[in-house]
Amino acid sequence: MICEILCVGTELLLGDIVNTDGAFIARETAAMGFSSYHQTTVGDNPERLREAVNLALSRSDVVIMTGGLGPTCDDITKNAAAEAFGRKLYFDESTREDIARFFERIGRPMTENNLSQCWVPEGATVFYNKWGTAPGLGIEGEIGGKRKYAVLLPGPPAECEPMFEECAKPWLARLSGDVIHSRNLHLYGIGESAAEQILRPMMEASENPTVAPYACEHEVRIRVTARAKSLEEAEAMCREKIAEIRKTAVGPSVYAETDDPFSAKNAMVTTLIGELRRKGWTFATAESCTAGMIGSMVGDIPGASDVFMGGIISYANEVKENVLGVPHEILATVGAVSEECAAAMAEGARRQTGADIAVSVTGIAGPGGGTPEKPVGTVCFGVSTEKGTWTETRHFSGKNDRAKIRRLTANHAMYLAIRTMRGEIG
Amino acid sequence: MICEILCVGTELLLGDIVNTDGAFIARETAAMGFSSYHQTTVGDNPERLREAVNLALSRSDVVIMTGGLGPTCDDITKNAAAEAFGRKLYFDESTREDIARFFERIGRPMTENNLSQCWVPEGATVFYNKWGTAPGLGIEGEIGGKRKYAVLLPGPPAECEPMFEECAKPWLARLSGDVIHSRNLHLYGIGESAAEQILRPMMEASENPTVAPYACEHEVRIRVTARAKSLEEAEAMCREKIAEIRKTAVGPSVYAETDDPFSAKNAMVTTLIGELRRKGWTFATAESCTAGMIGSMVGDIPGASDVFMGGIISYANEVKENVLGVPHEILATVGAVSEECAAAMAEGARRQTGADIAVSVTGIAGPGGGTPEKPVGTVCFGVSTEKGTWTETRHFSGKNDRAKIRRLTANHAMYLAIRTMRGEIG
Repeated sequence: MICEILCVGTELLLGDIVNTDGAFIARETAAMGFSSYHQTTVGDNPERLREAVNLALSRSDVVIMTGGLGPTCDDITKNAAAEAFGRKLYFDESTREDIARFFERIGRPMTENNLSQCWVPEGATVFYNKWGTAPGLGIEGEIGGKRKYAVLLPGPPAECEPMFEECAKPWLARLSGDVIHSRNLHLYGIGESAAEQILRPMMEASENPTVAPYACEHEVRIRVTARAKSLEEAEAMCREKIAEIRKTAVGPSVYAETDDPFSAKNAMVTTLIGELRRKGWTFATAESCTAGMIGSMVGDIPGASDVFMGGIISYANEVKENVLGVPHEILATVGAVSEECAAAMAEGARRQTGADIAVSVTGIAGPGGGTPEKPVGTVCFGVSTEKGTWTETRHFSGKNDRAKIRRLTANHAMYLAIRTMRGEIG
Repeated sequence: MICEILCVGTELLLGDIVNTDGAFIARETAAMGFSSYHQTTVGDNPERLREAVNLALSRSDVVIMTGGLGPTCDDITKNAAAEAFGRKLYFDESTREDIARFFERIGRPMTENNLSQCWVPEGATVFYNKWGTAPGLGIEGEIGGKRKYAVLLPGPPAECEPMFEECAKPWLARLSGDVIHSRNLHLYGIGESAAEQILRPMMEASENPTVAPYACEHEVRIRVTARAKSLEEAEAMCREKIAEIRKTAVGPSVYAETDDPFSAKNAMVTTLIGELRRKGWTFATAESCTAGMIGSMVGDIPGASDVFMGGIISYANEVKENVLGVPHEILATVGAVSEECAAAMAEGARRQTGADIAVSVTGIAGPGGGTPEKPVGTVCFGVSTEKGTWTETRHFSGKNDRAKIRRLTANHAMYLAIRTMRGEIG
């Protein structure tokens, strides 16, 4: 089935808001197995909207529309959709009761213009809006001899997203009768093209589950998506395909598996916290060029306080020396960007905070500060545990800008801590 | 003139990325005075892209396309646009030199497939891409007896946004023969609707310069855009309108003025660094709930090492006590989220790092950890200078999530440091 998203709102055309509804629904419908070829945005203009609705319904099976519902925009989306399906509107008493109940709950009087929302197309499914006043709608019918489906949702993301999940998704799921399940493999230390080359035969041969790579900023993600009659079956299919992938040459680069979007987005840091919890260890940082980014990423995760002690941002050499106890000779001879300094920083952070494991970073993020011996992108890392301290130096490409070098550095430091705890290095 | 945005990329249709290019260009073209009625997204499919390009060029004067440039997507956008204008491609030697220069700069070999990017439509303007390899293009010509314009830009926002500003904007501005100049006023401590209410008469009365508010996450931005025959004239018009705005009730909330996109995006932190340089002061942090975010934001700015000493991430109470010297009685009685603790943290950071001014934050970012007395969103701040230490408590609404509370906290801490240095508080 082909699905198309049509967003309605002059504020989108003016760029006053970013269209996050579109991305959200696109992701959800893709995971449900719908194909998608077009996404359109039009303003609050009845004529152009009518044209856009007709065009979308002519080329797609399902059209999901957001925005343009409710009295402030004259319900233009509802009217255009009803017209496209050749439906009259009728006054739906139970919708009136729903809206009255909403106003009762928020303790405000229901104004007259809200009654326009109670007029709904004949034969439509009304989706009750718990998060606002404009109800959503599901409409199905024959257009040009083909079965077509339209879903109408309010524009504000705080209404659109939960209503998609709770109302539209079940209404649409019955169209295929299948369950969709996805799982991500997170790879580090391998490029996207290298991973793609290894997995290409599998990607091309696999229709269900599908295997697809996603390039993220500092890692490669492989997404396995299965479609089956039950969740258990889909999960088993994903597990089997993942075992197959792990046996290929990309296997050693897999550092984590996730399925919820939150963990997927923060895979390195959630993996780090998971390893710390598994070992019952506490964590600390000594950051120079990242200036607190590693700590901030760890602090992003709810409950990080179980394992995170804190750290020292030693941007200036005085702080490296006075707070972390880096010997003055090191700074005066080999300099701040050296493995000697990184080692002393990691040890200092562990000593100062009492953490079980500390990582340190000191490097040149650019654009200035590079030298022929230590060009922009040179970063020294240290990891210190009770067992000892070890270090390494990385040269991130100078094509990366300052922001990217800092993010790559933060990520690599966490990766080193994870591998150290897993006993893979150190 | 009617302008339409056409974004190309299967990753947009799948919802893997949010279409920020579309919103950015929409805002910029609206500020330039173009009307906009449609925005479309299509995938990496040559036939559907061709249809979309033709449709867009049939109903709009200017079509701005993003994505689908470069060898990995077979240059489909370039080919579709060239075909729509009936142009042949030729091998442009100077583009080859530009791309070779880019690879030289990043120190990597230029691969064969990059040469496809040197084929450009006859009569097109090539926009040199300083930020990546795929050049942008400006094409104009007659289609169906009407003058039409197309701009092609790479998809990654880090390339698309600066290329729009530096290349596409001047190319488009000449369509009207005018120069466009914008300037942003950054407001803190006032809501968008309050600012809009105050400025509405001016917004409605002003056609040139235009006055438009932009709601950002933690501040309100007012953008003044003037169109004139020369840059000097446009700048003078902006200056005059800004003086008028500053005389209204929003005046006291203006904390910065910017015009380049980098400073606009980082206005609070670039303003902080500007104030530190002006006073010749050094800066340090003591961060609990933000866990290094303030330090990281300061470290984002090239050259921050002039003024930034570093700081202490005191996530655990042990670190507050042992490294920052917060008295044990404070932690045992009023607790870590208290103005007493914030004061001791700021003083400890100043003592440990030797900085002239230190800020501290300690609060409850949630979702857990709130109590009736100290609900989620409660944050205590401290600012310490040679003159003394002062504190305040803020209650960010619990409707904000953890990530947002942390960002609001980081921003507010910097705002307090700025106002302290300006002698407005403390």
